[in-house]
This record gives sequence, structure tokens and C-alpha cells, in this order.
Amino acid sequence: MKITSAHGGGGKQTGDLIGAIFGVYFTNEILDRMEDAAVLDLPSTRIAFTTDSFVVTPLFFPGGDIGKLAVCGTVNDLLMRGARPKYLSAGFILEEGLDTDDLERVVISMHNAAREAGVLIVAGDTKVVEGKAGMYVNTSGIGMVEARGDISAGAARPGDAVIISGHLGNHQACLLSRRMGIENTIESDCAPLGEMVLRLLESGLDIHTLRDITRGGLATVLNEIAAASKVRITLDGGAEYADEQVRGFCDILGLDPLTMGNEGRLALLLPEKDAERALALIRGSKYGADAIRVGTVRDTDRPEVVITTRAGGTRVVTPLLGEGLPRIC
Amino acid sequence: MKITSAHGGGGKQTGDLIGAIFGVYFTNEILDRMEDAAVLDLPSTRIAFTTDSFVVTPLFFPGGDIGKLAVCGTVNDLLMRGARPKYLSAGFILEEGLDTDDLERVVISMHNAAREAGVLIVAGDTKVVEGKAGMYVNTSGIGMVEARGDISAGAARPGDAVIISGHLGNHQACLLSRRMGIENTIESDCAPLGEMVLRLLESGLDIHTLRDITRGGLATVLNEIAAASKVRITLDGGAEYADEQVRGFCDILGLDPLTMGNEGRLALLLPEKDAERALALIRGSKYGADAIRVGTVRDTDRPEVVITTRAGGTRVVTPLLGEGLPRIC
Repeated sequence: MKITSAHGGGGKQTGDLIGAIFGVYFTNEILDRMEDAAVLDLPSTRIAFTTDSFVVTPLFFPGGDIGKLAVCGTVNDLLMRGARPKYLSAGFILEEGLDTDDLERVVISMHNAAREAGVLIVAGDTKVVEGKAGMYVNTSGIGMVEARGDISAGAARPGDAVIISGHLGNHQACLLSRRMGIENTIESDCAPLGEMVLRLLESGLDIHTLRDITRGGLATVLNEIAAASKVRITLDGGAEYADEQVRGFCDILGLDPLTMGNEGRLALLLPEKDAERALALIRGSKYGADAIRVGTVRDTDRPEVVITTRAGGTRVVTPLLGEGLPRIC
Repeated sequence: MKITSAHGGGGKQTGDLIGAIFGVYFTNEILDRMEDAAVLDLPSTRIAFTTDSFVVTPLFFPGGDIGKLAVCGTVNDLLMRGARPKYLSAGFILEEGLDTDDLERVVISMHNAAREAGVLIVAGDTKVVEGKAGMYVNTSGIGMVEARGDISAGAARPGDAVIISGHLGNHQACLLSRRMGIENTIESDCAPLGEMVLRLLESGLDIHTLRDITRGGLATVLNEIAAASKVRITLDGGAEYADEQVRGFCDILGLDPLTMGNEGRLALLLPEKDAERALALIRGSKYGADAIRVGTVRDTDRPEVVITTRAGGTRVVTPLLGEGLPRIC
């Protein structure tokens, strides 16, 4: 069946679509009530709240799809503030002509990702627009803050170690390959990072900053942290930021893994003394096997990110300039 | 300036756009921190949570625009569960070629509507897609539940009076007129209903059901309530559901105000004994001057909505069938 504008009219056809697809896979006591808003009893009053719209194309790619991405992206944003993800909303904008089989695949994928991430989808909305038979998904999320301190982009301090939870660039290289018709086995890194982050939070380590390395890549994320924390971040130019296949792919196309987007990688900044323990914890977590230490935070007069060069000097690492590959998330 | 794909890349241009427009009008202590998620300290643990995507076309119309609609729609959904709206997220999907002046108008409109509704926009996201230079806006919202009982679509009881807060159909008639190039002075009813609902909540009246009368119109909303509450709702066929201009407009086009969408109208169901007081309260509120009693809830073997006819009989009122006018919200 194809999506038509009647599915977005709010009448019988909208109700039928909800019953046939969303109601089947997203069923839970709260959502099933189909009220204007979900009423939730939270275990405490300190929450994290975030939103993200997903417009990725193609909708399906090796390692994930727009549905998995929409759950992981919002769940990961909550985790980055030291919060345990708990509730999600899902807003669908469907283009006329979308095959309902594709919608169902996306919804099943969201169901599976939500289960892995331990979140309930408790609110939803469906609209239909003209277009090219694609779809957009917005997820907003609520998490319960478990961190004792204020984990934030502004909390990095001189002396902190910079750790990344895995190789960079796989998500963007995967999508770029699909769009350019390049055959390879690169898969997206799209993943929910709850197990990893909750282990870090429970460890009692003095976590200063967590950030998921999405659009704009590590270069952009670290520049934001450097600016917010007023520090200089020095990266190790000899570190292996990307795996062999992505490195080869980047070399051919003249891309830099440092500005490429990921959907299941985080940067962690915490005091030097805790770095080894944090690395071990991350490496022992799902999706963290390839974690490495990549840099150090320094005192500064001027916030910036630099990387060491082979010649022993340094060069400035700028945030992503220009558009990068559009619609990777 | 025109929106380009670089504005959605997550790098420098995205940051510049946020600084030039969103940062100017949405500024507050929480949002300004630009973290992956907002950390919020709530006054209590019982919250309402909802989401809505807005795809209305045209973006600007008499009485409102997509921005005002996006704030009012989500704020009203929270109110319908007896919650005081508190925080909103705003997710923008911009089409390439959109004029940033139009974006700025929408953002200013959201700022003004949020101020009137008493909510803070604390989380945001921007993506760019190909298209026809339009935009979509998702808002999700959090409110603090103030109602003592469980106000819900399933709580209507035999003997309840059915009240609507004003004339029906203005929003949809306004948009339909613009799309068809019909000249008239019909304005959208788009409005935040906080003052009205919070007065009702504070009054101590025994409110059973509140529902905003959006896509699908009163016919669809009351059918949902009849089904959820397992009741029969009898509407007064002699009541003036629409104002004179909308009535004339509907007569010409063969439309029924009962299935037309609104963005600032609610249905209230509560015990007969409280009906007059509720009506007076609503009529004394902003946006409630034209409130009327339109029906009564009856016991039933079969949930349904009926309307009395001139001949003294009744006919069944069905939910909206077919698409109605697409993209009215």
C-alpha cells in the first residue's frame, strides 16, 4: 500500500494507519491510550530533554536505517548529559507514495532500537506531505539525570584526557558509498550508547564532558568543547582515527575522518588519572572495543584544537567548513 | 539570504544560522548552553509529554503562521491532560532555497507565542532537505500535571454536558480560502488555550474530558471520546457551530463545520451540574467568548455520536472520512 494525503488528514485513514503499523509495534500502556499527551510519573525531578529530526537518505543503509538512527540519536544525546534515557516521542512526516512496507520496516527497527536502549515510545504524530516517497522522523526524549556533577561541553579542564569510543567516519563513509554507488563493506556505526555511558556513570569516575560525535565530526565537536570550556585541545596526529577501510576510502576521496559524521561514537574528557580506567570500561562495553585515547586538554589564552604533525609541529583543526555530505542523519 | 544544504551540515554554517536567528529570539539560560540535551529541574514528578509536527502550507496565513501553530498546537495538547505547559523543543526541517527572512518571521512568531503561553524553548535542532523552499517544524512539550483527576478521552460519563470553546472551522476555512484564492476575511483561530484551561483547572470543577478540536474536527474528536469512554454523545442539531462567514463558506463548498480542523478550540465534557459555571468561565477567558453547550453524553450499548435533525430524529455523525484538506497543520 502507498501512503496518500488521507493518511495525514487526522480522520479514519489516519486512525487505520496508526492501528495497522504504529499501534502494532509501539504498543505500551501509555501510548495505547491515544491521548493528546502522555501523562508520566517520573522517579525524580531532574531530567534531560532533547530533540532531533532525521532526514537521512537513503532510508535504509548497511548497519541501520532512519528508524534506528532516530532512536539512537536522541537516546545518545540524553546520555551525553549523564541521563538514563526513559521516554521518547516519535513524529513522522511521510511523503505521499511511500510504501507502507518501508514504513513498517522503519517502525520495527525503532521498536528494536528502543528495546535495546530501554526506552518507551509514549507519544507520536503522523503527517503526510507531497514529495519523493521518503520520510522524516523526529524523536524527542526525556531521561533521568544520574550524574552527580554537571557533565557538559563547558566542563573540560586542563589536564583532561580525550578519549573516543571507536573508529571515526564509518556512518558517513557508508552513506557516501551508497549515494555514489561505490561497492564496499563499510557499515554505519549507528548504535545506542546506553550500556557504555551508564557503566561510566556508575563507575564513579570524574567525567567532565561527554559528546556524541555526529554531524561535523570530532573536529567540530572538540572545537565546541574548546570554546565552551575555554581550553586548548591537543590531538595526537599519530592516532588511528579511522579503521583501515574507512582510511582508504577517505584517502581516495580526499576526506578527513576528523570531520566525518558518526552515529554511535562519543568523545569523553576526564582527568588524566582516570583515563586508563575509563578506556578499559569503554573497551569492555558493547560498541566500545576500539576506543582509544587521542588527546589532552591544555590551558590556553585562546580556545582552539590542534593536532601534532609528523614533523613535530602542530596545525589547527577547524570545525567542518562547507556542507560536508548532506542528509547523513 | 537563502537556506543551503550547508546550513544543515552541522558545521560552521549551521552554527552561524543558529547564532543569527535561533540564538537571537529563543535565547534563555538553558538553550544558550548549546548542549546535546537540556537539563531541567522540575517542580514535581507528574508530567505530560507530547509531540506534533507541523507541515502547514502556506507558511503564513491570516491569524497565524507555522511557528505560532507549532507552539499553540503542542501547548494545547499538554493542557488537554490538565497540565501546565512548561518546556518546548523545536525541530526545524528547512527546504533549500527558503528565505532566511521567512525563517526569522517564523522564529519571531514562535518566540511571541511561547511568551504568551508561558513556555521556554529549551532544545532545538535544524536540518536541511531539498524541496520547494518551505519548512516543517516539530515541537515536543513537557507540562506539569495540575489536574487532580485523570482528565482523558476515556473519562466521559453519561449525563456529562458537551461544551465547545468557540466557533468551528475558521482555521481550515482560512487555509482553504488561501489555497483556492478565495477572497474573504476569515482568519485562523490558532491560539494558546492556557488561560482558559488553567482557569478551569483552578476552579475545582469536575472536568472529565478536554480535547482540542484539530484535524478531523469535532466529529472525529467526539467519536474518539465516545469510543474511549464507551458512551453515546448526542449533539444539538440546532446549535450554531460556525460563525456566519464560515457557515456561508461551508454552504457554498458543501463542507461540514463538524469535520473541519481548528487550532484554538477545545471540547470540554463535565457533569451537567457544572456546565453553566464552566461555560461562564470559558466565555470570560481569552479566545472563549463564543463558547456554547452543544450536546450531552448518554448511556449506550454501542459508542456513537448522533446529532438531532429538524424533523426531530437523529443521524449518526461519523469521523472525518477521506482526506479533508491536507496540510492544515
